[in-house]
Amino acid sequence: MNLLIVYAHEEQNSFSCALKDVAVSVLRSRGHTVEVSDLYAQHFNPVASREDFTTLSDKQYINYMLEQRTAAEHGYFSQDICAEQEKVRRADLIMFHFPVWWFSAPAILKGWFDRVFATGVTWNFGHIYDTGLLKGKKAMLVVTTGGGEDLYQNRGAHKATILQILHPIMHGTLHFCAMDVLPPFVAFGIFQAGEEGRKNYLEAFRVRLSSIETTPPIEFSSLCP
Amino acid sequence: MNLLIVYAHEEQNSFSCALKDVAVSVLRSRGHTVEVSDLYAQHFNPVASREDFTTLSDKQYINYMLEQRTAAEHGYFSQDICAEQEKVRRADLIMFHFPVWWFSAPAILKGWFDRVFATGVTWNFGHIYDTGLLKGKKAMLVVTTGGGEDLYQNRGAHKATILQILHPIMHGTLHFCAMDVLPPFVAFGIFQAGEEGRKNYLEAFRVRLSSIETTPPIEFSSLCP
Repeated sequence: MNLLIVYAHEEQNSFSCALKDVAVSVLRSRGHTVEVSDLYAQHFNPVASREDFTTLSDKQYINYMLEQRTAAEHGYFSQDICAEQEKVRRADLIMFHFPVWWFSAPAILKGWFDRVFATGVTWNFGHIYDTGLLKGKKAMLVVTTGGGEDLYQNRGAHKATILQILHPIMHGTLHFCAMDVLPPFVAFGIFQAGEEGRKNYLEAFRVRLSSIETTPPIEFSSLCP
Repeated sequence: MNLLIVYAHEEQNSFSCALKDVAVSVLRSRGHTVEVSDLYAQHFNPVASREDFTTLSDKQYINYMLEQRTAAEHGYFSQDICAEQEKVRRADLIMFHFPVWWFSAPAILKGWFDRVFATGVTWNFGHIYDTGLLKGKKAMLVVTTGGGEDLYQNRGAHKATILQILHPIMHGTLHFCAMDVLPPFVAFGIFQAGEEGRKNYLEAFRVRLSSIETTPPIEFSSLCP
């Protein structure tokens, strides 16, 4: 498989980085091709704006979604967006490695979706979910949390499970583009986990990676049945 | 009341901008003080990094959350973060105006939360939800969607309601800091709505604003009871 790892953490001694390094080494040793988009190292710009297009179809009124569609048709995307979209095209499976900040991805990754997952490239009008443009590709989230697992129970303080909290990314973004989304790997409470707990998480992640090719995707149903 | 409007849309002819302008004019005419953080106009940087601190407690290993706590204690935040935190301190009610992109806020606003809603400023260890540091303040989302309201039903394509989709911001971010969160104002399907539909939304928003002082907050319960 061709894999793309999109990694969003500044600190090279972080546990997110350790998980990313394990993914790269295990997947390569299994014969896969692995590319990494290290968003902090690339100084990736997450702010969607008119600067994202080499030509605008309407200079007076920017409808970002429509400009994306035009850019997809005519090749008007800025160079940094093109480079990421090429990586997406090459990938059979994209893994997103990030710490959960405010129930979501760090802004640098959120903006990667805003700018790279463009209309006409990953979805289009009338082409969402089952008919999205990334059909046949897979995705998986690999996340860490500061808070412990107890917070992430339906009856816990967050009043939502981690799967519900990740719904906007897993269903509303990845599955929206018809990607098959594998169950996420979640390392909870990484500070309190201690050396031993973090070692166990890395080992559990290796085990997950060893069957990544055959892991069945999530069947999305209504958030509350 | 002192109001802060945090506004995240580049296009000055957008419907988000129209809603923001209505809020400013109606609230001022009702005698309130209104400040606006226009994130695009300010060229707000949404990327959390070590550059956010004038002094680091550990230069070898950045734990962003802990650096925030130290910065809060000693005044080590960068100037742009300080300025926004001062606005938050002054505000009795903060309104967030943005288009829903990928079931969430545009990256420029996500990064405002990442950087401005810092540990030690809006929450702290042992001070989340009921004991968060923004107790007594209110918040409200004012959002637009491209997709129609039919998508945002529990049985709709998004497999979640707009309230569930906004849970990470309303509960996981604002209520996490003990803010009272008012029901959001949502303008669905603003492109298909047409001139008449958008006029109706503006009128409905004026009505909402006319009782903003007495609107009861959301009582958060588990996402799926």
